[in-house]
Amino acid sequence: MMNQRSSLKALAHTLLLWVLLASAAPAMAQTDPLPSWNDGPAKQAIVEFVKATTTPGGAGFVPEAERIATFDQDGTLWVEKPMYSQVIYCLDRVPAVVKARPELANVEPFKTVMSGDREAIAKLSLEDLEKILMVTLTGMSVDDFRAEATKWLDTARDPRWKRPYTELTYLPMQEVLKFLRANGYKTYIVTGGGQDFVRIYAERVYGIPPEQVVGTAAATSYGYDKDGKPFLTKDPRVLLNDNNAGKPEGIYLMIGRRPVAAFGNSTGDRQMLEYTKAGGGARLSMLVLHDDAVREYAYGPAQGLADSRVGTFTQALYDEAKKAGWTVISMKNDWKRIFAFD
Amino acid sequence: MMNQRSSLKALAHTLLLWVLLASAAPAMAQTDPLPSWNDGPAKQAIVEFVKATTTPGGAGFVPEAERIATFDQDGTLWVEKPMYSQVIYCLDRVPAVVKARPELANVEPFKTVMSGDREAIAKLSLEDLEKILMVTLTGMSVDDFRAEATKWLDTARDPRWKRPYTELTYLPMQEVLKFLRANGYKTYIVTGGGQDFVRIYAERVYGIPPEQVVGTAAATSYGYDKDGKPFLTKDPRVLLNDNNAGKPEGIYLMIGRRPVAAFGNSTGDRQMLEYTKAGGGARLSMLVLHDDAVREYAYGPAQGLADSRVGTFTQALYDEAKKAGWTVISMKNDWKRIFAFD
Repeated sequence: MMNQRSSLKALAHTLLLWVLLASAAPAMAQTDPLPSWNDGPAKQAIVEFVKATTTPGGAGFVPEAERIATFDQDGTLWVEKPMYSQVIYCLDRVPAVVKARPELANVEPFKTVMSGDREAIAKLSLEDLEKILMVTLTGMSVDDFRAEATKWLDTARDPRWKRPYTELTYLPMQEVLKFLRANGYKTYIVTGGGQDFVRIYAERVYGIPPEQVVGTAAATSYGYDKDGKPFLTKDPRVLLNDNNAGKPEGIYLMIGRRPVAAFGNSTGDRQMLEYTKAGGGARLSMLVLHDDAVREYAYGPAQGLADSRVGTFTQALYDEAKKAGWTVISMKNDWKRIFAFD
Repeated sequence: MMNQRSSLKALAHTLLLWVLLASAAPAMAQTDPLPSWNDGPAKQAIVEFVKATTTPGGAGFVPEAERIATFDQDGTLWVEKPMYSQVIYCLDRVPAVVKARPELANVEPFKTVMSGDREAIAKLSLEDLEKILMVTLTGMSVDDFRAEATKWLDTARDPRWKRPYTELTYLPMQEVLKFLRANGYKTYIVTGGGQDFVRIYAERVYGIPPEQVVGTAAATSYGYDKDGKPFLTKDPRVLLNDNNAGKPEGIYLMIGRRPVAAFGNSTGDRQMLEYTKAGGGARLSMLVLHDDAVREYAYGPAQGLADSRVGTFTQALYDEAKKAGWTVISMKNDWKRIFAFD
């Protein structure tokens, strides 16, 4: 007992020392939570929003349980050019699917994908891509899907930086995720991409657990294998289309609270940003503008940027942002660094 | 500065005292986490499961992020007899709906409900009830729904105990919820009842936030009011039917992880319990058996209990439980108290 008391006393003295030291280092609390951001209106908007919503007694104070922040993924948290990573995964999966179902080899759009003709593949219509997604993402158990996609994520490399796709996440946005969480926010991904796909790496890449990923989702069916063990199969039927109006609808279904902060980069995020801002009080709606052709890509077509099939940021969206008090983030001007590997 | 140092020194001495006192009270840790449970196999199963899944290095250890426990609501966390509370809410709503839509007054099943004939109302078919639910729960904004249901929950009283329905929650199950949360578990409700309805009171009654309530859900539509302010409308279309196989499907969609523990009370929970148990390792699947006609109700028809339209616990389910290693909770034998107000 004396020994235990002695060691507890030593611990208490350590605590005393720690308390005294802490009082001598108030500067620690001043560490910049967003070191990859240049000073400017975007960084200022984030810092002021966090201060307003977390200061007890302030007009903009939000109780911790209601601190919900939602982030689009493609083009907001990671690179979406030249094509969404998940679409590249699906295209890469086509040969395996055609091997298992040879009748697809001479059917479009699978025939074009199998031809390897990059130009023709790049020209596939949205309808064609949807057919490819349906065939490559469904008709298997959720465990088989997970195993296949995990293998691809571990081995595939993007064409420009020659790195795993999961490394192409924006460092400044990672800082925002951490800054919000350090201030009691629950961070969610609300993506037009596949919920199952993103859930595989969201914890590792963004620190976001699967239950905080909302995305486009296929229905599943519960069944039993030959040993009577239950499993879930991914069905070729879209249950949730988490784009445009589907984003606030998906947020209501999956979270049941209106976000206080929302981040997007395209017309597909418009309704989520409107819905967030309409909550009243201190609200943060932000849009990432891809205007840095040197360090990433420049496409839009807001502000005269090139038109693009992915991540459409129209001038009308830009104008709505300005009018509604959303903040546009210029990758070129607001971000010191784009990637952790820069 | 000296003043600040002095007060910090005083704080450190308080900490020292606290540490010394704590060492003298090891008995505190032994407090029974389930005081409303009689000693027996059910209580033992819960305590042993928690110990197995939270002991680092043990064979059954589950990392904190994966500690998911799911609870059916009606008949598992609160009383479901003589009829599900939400159905009573919908029946109570019929006059207001008929007033707004007089054409329904002479259409069944609304005509029967408006007649006030309790016997005839009790005999309404499941199909009739579904029609009533659809008309009373949809076709309004989510905010209007919330306001209406909140008003009802605040004022309605159950016929037997003359108390708000939200007080009819089982004290022993409340203790399980708290015990699991104190051990790093995230507790979810997975109910065949309406997700929107349960989310209104789940935080207050069960300590479960809206984002951890999974239930049967109608689709919503995003739109704008005359001032251009966005809002969501509840549509008369079932998006998720969270019963039977719909429970593991809903869990996969909304949580994306397999539960480690699951609690139910009827055939509608069978698949959730199977799915949970099939995860392997230390898993807990439990069924509440309503066998206490004196303190609550006795219905089943497992073990010769009376047949019932709600919360069907068949003998086949009882047999599967015994065979699969699920634990059946006898309300009569396992629970010292049923309600906090007993």
